[in-house]
Amino acid sequence: MNLDFAKADGLVTAVIQDYASGRVLMVGYMNEEAFRKTLETGCATFYSRSRGKLWVKGETSGHRLMVKEISTDCDGDALLVRVEALGPGVCHEGYQSCFFRKLDHGKWRIAEARAYDPSAVYGGKP
Amino acid sequence: MNLDFAKADGLVTAVIQDYASGRVLMVGYMNEEAFRKTLETGCATFYSRSRGKLWVKGETSGHRLMVKEISTDCDGDALLVRVEALGPGVCHEGYQSCFFRKLDHGKWRIAEARAYDPSAVYGGKP
Repeated sequence: MNLDFAKADGLVTAVIQDYASGRVLMVGYMNEEAFRKTLETGCATFYSRSRGKLWVKGETSGHRLMVKEISTDCDGDALLVRVEALGPGVCHEGYQSCFFRKLDHGKWRIAEARAYDPSAVYGGKP
Repeated sequence: MNLDFAKADGLVTAVIQDYASGRVLMVGYMNEEAFRKTLETGCATFYSRSRGKLWVKGETSGHRLMVKEISTDCDGDALLVRVEALGPGVCHEGYQSCFFRKLDHGKWRIAEARAYDPSAVYGGKP
């Protein structure tokens, strides 16, 4: 089988899961080039839908995602990438996981403390 | 904050994770109606991009996904839905998880045995 990049405008969905803890850390998107770079470098690389270009996760922060294992789903349009996450957090807002808000009686509430100070890591960079 | 349905044609990505084991079971997509139905019924409900309509996961098979907890990510365009999965498997091909193929030296290989016989569960139904 091959990945199905055609279904969603050249992209597959990539779920990033911590290899050790099993926590889901983030969801990104990969085009064929990002997927190839991920394999070549061993560092999760995405295609930014908003910026329209590739980005190596952790390029600015150093919080890279080192690939341990990749699975795909039955219809080949999603990836599960199990990683060793370098650094304290994946989210640019300072949290360990981008999924730091839980639904609580109909409201999204922040459910954990920050793992690092994002202004110290990202400074003025976007 | 609110979910951002506008970014991807009215859909958010929904990662389904087993609440007990932490295994990622599938990735689906929800429009606003599917999300509301998921909350109302407690059963994960998706929007099928290929069929262009809502589907309650497990409607045919009985393998429903009972919602235990929902998180959203920093930009509100993805959900992490932790579930109790009823039945032996989530995948219509008979596997516990849709992510049953692992990348092994550049090839996708089936990495586990089927959990049930899909022809017995789905019969002639699509």
